[in-house]
Amino acid sequence: MDLVWLVPITGVLAVLFALWLARDVLSRDTGTPAMQDIAGMIFEGAMAFLRRQYGTIAILALVVSVVISVLVTAVSEGVKEIVFSGGALQYGDIVIEPLREGVLTGVAFLLGAFASGLAGYIGMYISVRSNLRTAAAAQKSLRDAITVALRGGAVSGFLVVAMSLMGVSGLFFVYTNLLGTPPAIAPFLIVGFGFGASFVALFAQIGGGIYTKAADVGADLVGKVEAGIPEDDPRNAAVVADLVGDNVGDCAGRGADLFESMSAENIGAMILGVAIATVTGQMGWILFPLVLRSFGIVAAMVGLLTVPMFANDEAKTMKNPMSALNGGYYVVSILSVVGLFICTYAMLGEYWFPFFICGVVGIATGIAFVYITQYYTAGSWRPVQEIAEASRTGPATNIIIGTAVGLETTAATAISIGLALVISFVVGEQAHIKDVPGYTSGIFGTAVATMGMLMSAAYILAMDTFGPITDNAGGINEMSHAPSSARDITDALDAVGNTTKALTKGYAVASAGLAAFLLFSAYLDKIKERLGIPLVDSLPIDLSSIDVFVGGLLGVMLVFVFSSLTIRAVGTAGSKIIEEVRRQFREHPGIMLGTERPDYARAVDITARAALHEMIFPGVLAVGLPVVVGLLFRFLRDASVTVNGQTYENASGWLAVSGMLIIGTIGGIMMATFFNNSGGAWDNAKKFIEAGSMTDASGEVIKKGSPTHAAAVVGDTVGDPYKDTAGPSLHVLIKLLATVTLVLAPLFVG
Amino acid sequence: MDLVWLVPITGVLAVLFALWLARDVLSRDTGTPAMQDIAGMIFEGAMAFLRRQYGTIAILALVVSVVISVLVTAVSEGVKEIVFSGGALQYGDIVIEPLREGVLTGVAFLLGAFASGLAGYIGMYISVRSNLRTAAAAQKSLRDAITVALRGGAVSGFLVVAMSLMGVSGLFFVYTNLLGTPPAIAPFLIVGFGFGASFVALFAQIGGGIYTKAADVGADLVGKVEAGIPEDDPRNAAVVADLVGDNVGDCAGRGADLFESMSAENIGAMILGVAIATVTGQMGWILFPLVLRSFGIVAAMVGLLTVPMFANDEAKTMKNPMSALNGGYYVVSILSVVGLFICTYAMLGEYWFPFFICGVVGIATGIAFVYITQYYTAGSWRPVQEIAEASRTGPATNIIIGTAVGLETTAATAISIGLALVISFVVGEQAHIKDVPGYTSGIFGTAVATMGMLMSAAYILAMDTFGPITDNAGGINEMSHAPSSARDITDALDAVGNTTKALTKGYAVASAGLAAFLLFSAYLDKIKERLGIPLVDSLPIDLSSIDVFVGGLLGVMLVFVFSSLTIRAVGTAGSKIIEEVRRQFREHPGIMLGTERPDYARAVDITARAALHEMIFPGVLAVGLPVVVGLLFRFLRDASVTVNGQTYENASGWLAVSGMLIIGTIGGIMMATFFNNSGGAWDNAKKFIEAGSMTDASGEVIKKGSPTHAAAVVGDTVGDPYKDTAGPSLHVLIKLLATVTLVLAPLFVG
Repeated sequence: MDLVWLVPITGVLAVLFALWLARDVLSRDTGTPAMQDIAGMIFEGAMAFLRRQYGTIAILALVVSVVISVLVTAVSEGVKEIVFSGGALQYGDIVIEPLREGVLTGVAFLLGAFASGLAGYIGMYISVRSNLRTAAAAQKSLRDAITVALRGGAVSGFLVVAMSLMGVSGLFFVYTNLLGTPPAIAPFLIVGFGFGASFVALFAQIGGGIYTKAADVGADLVGKVEAGIPEDDPRNAAVVADLVGDNVGDCAGRGADLFESMSAENIGAMILGVAIATVTGQMGWILFPLVLRSFGIVAAMVGLLTVPMFANDEAKTMKNPMSALNGGYYVVSILSVVGLFICTYAMLGEYWFPFFICGVVGIATGIAFVYITQYYTAGSWRPVQEIAEASRTGPATNIIIGTAVGLETTAATAISIGLALVISFVVGEQAHIKDVPGYTSGIFGTAVATMGMLMSAAYILAMDTFGPITDNAGGINEMSHAPSSARDITDALDAVGNTTKALTKGYAVASAGLAAFLLFSAYLDKIKERLGIPLVDSLPIDLSSIDVFVGGLLGVMLVFVFSSLTIRAVGTAGSKIIEEVRRQFREHPGIMLGTERPDYARAVDITARAALHEMIFPGVLAVGLPVVVGLLFRFLRDASVTVNGQTYENASGWLAVSGMLIIGTIGGIMMATFFNNSGGAWDNAKKFIEAGSMTDASGEVIKKGSPTHAAAVVGDTVGDPYKDTAGPSLHVLIKLLATVTLVLAPLFVG
Repeated sequence: MDLVWLVPITGVLAVLFALWLARDVLSRDTGTPAMQDIAGMIFEGAMAFLRRQYGTIAILALVVSVVISVLVTAVSEGVKEIVFSGGALQYGDIVIEPLREGVLTGVAFLLGAFASGLAGYIGMYISVRSNLRTAAAAQKSLRDAITVALRGGAVSGFLVVAMSLMGVSGLFFVYTNLLGTPPAIAPFLIVGFGFGASFVALFAQIGGGIYTKAADVGADLVGKVEAGIPEDDPRNAAVVADLVGDNVGDCAGRGADLFESMSAENIGAMILGVAIATVTGQMGWILFPLVLRSFGIVAAMVGLLTVPMFANDEAKTMKNPMSALNGGYYVVSILSVVGLFICTYAMLGEYWFPFFICGVVGIATGIAFVYITQYYTAGSWRPVQEIAEASRTGPATNIIIGTAVGLETTAATAISIGLALVISFVVGEQAHIKDVPGYTSGIFGTAVATMGMLMSAAYILAMDTFGPITDNAGGINEMSHAPSSARDITDALDAVGNTTKALTKGYAVASAGLAAFLLFSAYLDKIKERLGIPLVDSLPIDLSSIDVFVGGLLGVMLVFVFSSLTIRAVGTAGSKIIEEVRRQFREHPGIMLGTERPDYARAVDITARAALHEMIFPGVLAVGLPVVVGLLFRFLRDASVTVNGQTYENASGWLAVSGMLIIGTIGGIMMATFFNNSGGAWDNAKKFIEAGSMTDASGEVIKKGSPTHAAAVVGDTVGDPYKDTAGPSLHVLIKLLATVTLVLAPLFVG
């Protein structure tokens, strides 16, 4: 049965749903003029940053799209038709000329970049409108506040998913039906879309990550430490920049991150589907990833609408607001399993069952990561409490134990990803598709697991954006001196927001880890296509080759140096804000007395300029290093590879890039996990102490301002750039590595 | 020309040289009774710890040697003869029966463990005797103090090198000449020696690393922070444990580390030499690594004896005592090049020149690492000063920038190792040895580079052990209230000691990185031997195989979790000492008044017990995980590998182990570099501030006890377990991975 008609329908449905949510949120109560005033400043600051950031990215993207088109045209020999004959996949005539290949790849790149930017922009727009409504709703009831914040977040979530789905499927439709590209070839041209999405995500995440933490660390150091005024105090000129930062990092950044995950994973899975489709003659294998995503959208919609039901009991929800969101997530997961069943059964024919199991493995992995992240970063368990305990002996022991906890968390990540990959691969192999090697269907199994996991992406993103919205709502209520009952509600939601933000990062790492393997296979398919090796044959990337080994060494180096640059950038940009706030205090003594209003806009502007300045070098390094390494090895070394008795000379370029890609990805997954979880744990260790959960030797409760608390604040500050700049930037780096090498693979083939 | 007779001669010569140095050092002035009293306590504490530690290790080693013998006997089908016929290396009859293989491997293991332990024990014995003599010599002149400290360190250095050389060559002689094993087979049995050395090094380094930092952190927290008394104050019961710790970590630990490096590298290079030797019929290729090491010993002896010449100008040396040690290192390097020329020319016949160049590349890499480490960890350059600057805004920014610097240093490491590997591989390939594939001679080229680098090992180790000796000398002078001129001298030497300790770690990482590639090739040779694949054929370890990928993920996980465990162990063991010192202060108020002497021995004993307790789990994990992963994949998965048209089933076990080994090694090199260099930089940033190099806004010098200095102390404390526990333990982990998989390879072949 053909379910492809579902794709455009659910795409449009998701957009309409997002618009309906947006209208609902925007029609809600906007509170007092004081609140509106503050929210207005946040809105303007956020939009000003986005315009400036996307302006820079747009120029970079235009240049890169032209470069890609030219490069691909120059080095390509055209794309050959793929046909099944003599029991194997063979290449036929050239069906896409080099110029056409270059242009279509470049166009797809631009469209991917544009769609990612647009989704981020609209999502941000609604998010910085929702914070005010959430603050106002918190003055009524917890349930209302949760509903507004989650719906505001969902606008972003559904737009991101819809744009990714419609972008990939629209390009596929245009390239095949309108431009006459054979369906087996089109996915190889659409990779440009994934690269475009990665490219925007990279800069959006680095820039946003630097902005948010520079503002945060800067505001804390100059306000809390130097001037001795509380957090979110309106006298601090950096406080609006801090609130803006929450949005640009978590909302726009993570949205671009998952947009890229979904797009890259969809395209990679379609490329893997090509081999099976050409052998079996069923195009369903290529379109399956798109249809499955459609079911995921429906599941996420229903799940989202059920959340208020789980928040019916106000008192119980107040104690644990996370339970309402968890309730919705379970609905999404159950519906995803149902959708998976329908989709595999209808589209994969007699081979449906193994792939259904693979998808369930992916959904289960998603749930596992939700719990693993909670265990390691929430105050109710051993790891966070251990860090809080270590704070008694000062900041040094707090940092030492926090580092140990962060490093330890990589075990759960590695084992879960490893298990999910091995199980889905083995189950996929058991499909025994006629004439298709077990290896090919095994990899497709890991792709289905990744798809299964990402079915809930819209819901997860809604939960993620929930974070900055409630955080901002708390800030607005704080600065406008709202009643304490409303502040209790926003405080409770803010704590949940911290958890959901941490969850989304765990989810992003896990999906990147699962997708890594399929994207690497897609890269190898592209190399095979260039070398004329049948797609279903294996192309060994030999770890004992010096090119692969040194490429891998440089890949892990890229991860470390990139982390260093982003962490350092927070310090550099933060010092700019500190200088500005100090200047305002010095030149306008009225600010400290409360008689003069600080120039928030100037602080926002300076932060934005500093963050954008700092984002360029790490971004260019990430895009450029794989290309430089590939070209250096291509021209300076000359290893050869033998496949099926045929020797291919000048293989060093793509061998080194292979090592860099896959070993760099493994290093990146582990480092991102370390950064995300240690940062989250430090944050919550501080909150654990602030909640009055610890007593000193004489039995008195340890309070804010005690040496133990001060030690925990040091850990929290160190964790900020870890968890909100370096960690999330590494997610996008991993996927960028995959897409840039996929698109530029022809460059490395000698 | 056959130079093999040089091996036993230089081995004996090195031992005699060490004994002569020991006699010279022991005959020197031992200072005042107060000094002797303190030194006596350090001596007793160190020896008590070593006895206890080696006691535990001896039991573990005995058990493991029996397990190895039984396992190898059980799974082996015997070792086949390797002959060159029909233009390729083929296997002949079984020449070593399974039982013989098991027993000889087990015996080699025990001998390696014993030799490593003995070298460590004797070296430590002299080292903790030299500290007192150095303290006394410092009351005369700087030149005398440098000479005594360096000679004391050299005893350990030369014994370690001599034991490694004589152990490997002695086993080779006995196995071939006395037991009749063919020379081409013997290296495969001697791998047990490398595993034994790794095994002892692992526990020695973990235990020593935990001990030294638990005592250091504990003494600092309870003394400086809680009781407000200075460092090395005799009222602190943990102060002797702290001085003992310097010896067990840097002297015994690093000695075992480099003993293992040399042994594993020698054996691995001999295995690589087998292929070339069997093809060319010249046994020189197998024995070359041993002979080159002999030349290295001679070069190091001469270099060491020239050091006092470079310290002639007392005033100049006082300003920069490092210059005298650098002078000696250059002599060693130049003589190494000469030795390399003689050795390659005499032993490698017409192919000498490319391998001479490879060796020079290795020597140059060693020099490069000396400078890279100095740049990143010495106060005269940007990185350390940047960290010191960041301390102005508190501990959080100090940690953030220190982390960024540490991550950044991996670039120099990765690029240097990558360059050295690629150049030596390419040059080795150009040797065009008749009938030998370029790949094989390329790998041998990287082996010669590693050998070239390790020629200076004895000298480097002498410099390293110089560190704890001068550190202890300073402590003895401090505690015995020696004249300030003597303390100035020991302070200057202590600063140099910090640099030499950092250098040795850089050197150890670089040699581990270079050796990784050759050891991996040796592992593959062993697998080929088991599968019956000709040694010179390539056996691709395909990165796109799920087994290799997941194995790699678990390998990097092992690195992270192992680091977490060792860092955390410092905290756990440290808290035991803190409790004990607190108890002594509480129960004996006279200690604080200076009327009662604290019970140092008890503090030493408690630290030792805690450290040994904490070393077991990470050690067992490191040895056990590769075995568990290999067996799990062997029995639960069933990938196959095709080489030359022949398919080998049940390959998953050794594929997963391959991924774990090589990708884990890359991750380990990078993490060790990060830990070592960030720790070193934090340490020296604190010293930079203490030296009065920074002024505050009003132009006044920032002093000890200021908030800026306090922030730098936090960084220093965090860096302690990084640079002295986790980093060095990772060096040995990397090499252990190589030797354990090499010895147990038959277990993973289905």
